Amino acid sequence: MRFSPLIEQLMEAFRVLPGVGPKTAQRMAMHLLERERPGGKRLAAIIEQAIDEVGYCQRCRTLTEASVCALCESPRRDDTLLCVVESPADQLAIEEAGGFSGRYFVLHGHLSPLDGVGPDALGLDLLEARVAEGNIQEIVLATNPTVEGEATAHYIASQLAAYGVTFSRLAYGVPMGGELEYVDGGTLSRAFNGRLPFTSD
Amino acid sequence: MRFSPLIEQLMEAFRVLPGVGPKTAQRMAMHLLERERPGGKRLAAIIEQAIDEVGYCQRCRTLTEASVCALCESPRRDDTLLCVVESPADQLAIEEAGGFSGRYFVLHGHLSPLDGVGPDALGLDLLEARVAEGNIQEIVLATNPTVEGEATAHYIASQLAAYGVTFSRLAYGVPMGGELEYVDGGTLSRAFNGRLPFTSD
Repeated sequence: MRFSPLIEQLMEAFRVLPGVGPKTAQRMAMHLLERERPGGKRLAAIIEQAIDEVGYCQRCRTLTEASVCALCESPRRDDTLLCVVESPADQLAIEEAGGFSGRYFVLHGHLSPLDGVGPDALGLDLLEARVAEGNIQEIVLATNPTVEGEATAHYIASQLAAYGVTFSRLAYGVPMGGELEYVDGGTLSRAFNGRLPFTSD
Repeated sequence: MRFSPLIEQLMEAFRVLPGVGPKTAQRMAMHLLERERPGGKRLAAIIEQAIDEVGYCQRCRTLTEASVCALCESPRRDDTLLCVVESPADQLAIEEAGGFSGRYFVLHGHLSPLDGVGPDALGLDLLEARVAEGNIQEIVLATNPTVEGEATAHYIASQLAAYGVTFSRLAYGVPMGGELEYVDGGTLSRAFNGRLPFTSD
């Protein structure tokens, strides 16, 4: 015996969510049907609406249902600074950390020729048009500190070299609050080479 | 900065699922919007359909989109044996453990006067009508091995005492305070075979 066909389909459909295996999918299906039908209806309606209406911001390509996102619209951001990130979640993490007052550009991934992800898929033509406007003086290439993220940063820097903007990359080092003992060798070695002057006053 | 209003609503809506906190909700929303729009559409449609169409089986009250579930329709089950469970997930766990060939009755909960869950909410009138049909000789009270499950089993046994059926309860091979849904098949199967006579006094 299994559940009825429709319930089985519901459990199967939940598997599309990240980190949801068969047991969790069953628990979610049972929870909605047994205890949360109004919440389930709301969830279904909002998934439907969000998938229909959320697209990319015309300027920075972050996810938004508006044609231009709130951050791009804001008059209070510094137009001379642009931060390039791989995902909207990375953008949010940087915003929540605070301290950056410029604009963003979201790639939605990194260069990955084997998966067919080239410069077009990352919107690099739009990025170049943005730089060609002439306001930007520094581009922070905040792609992930991975092989693919590094390669993407290098590609962008070389593609836009002619425009005379400064490029920077997030500092590598030991994470705040971490313990040296548990930091990986690659990070530790880069933190050592990038060590900074220190004074006690 | 947060995400756009519609994305925030989507993240909030995911919180209705069991075990989903703010971080997981964000990951699910981003995953659907960035990588799984067709799967997300399918999920929304099937949640909608399941909530509209899945109701209770007229005979056993398990969740099904049919008026009578496949197990109640089956001519191959033993009509003299009835197993009473708290949830469809418990029913599935017992079926998957194997060894039980009778029919089921699903309470959808246990007696809980403080939460307003009385005999009516558990369909005990339907259960009594079923027993009054006269086929049933033994009722296995497979409510959870918790205080509430025990109390519910006692209540049912005393309510139906006049019909002259035998009551039994799963053997204590199942851990006290646990939930049937998560017990392994071997334990469940042995507990089934070791079920004991049950009286309401």
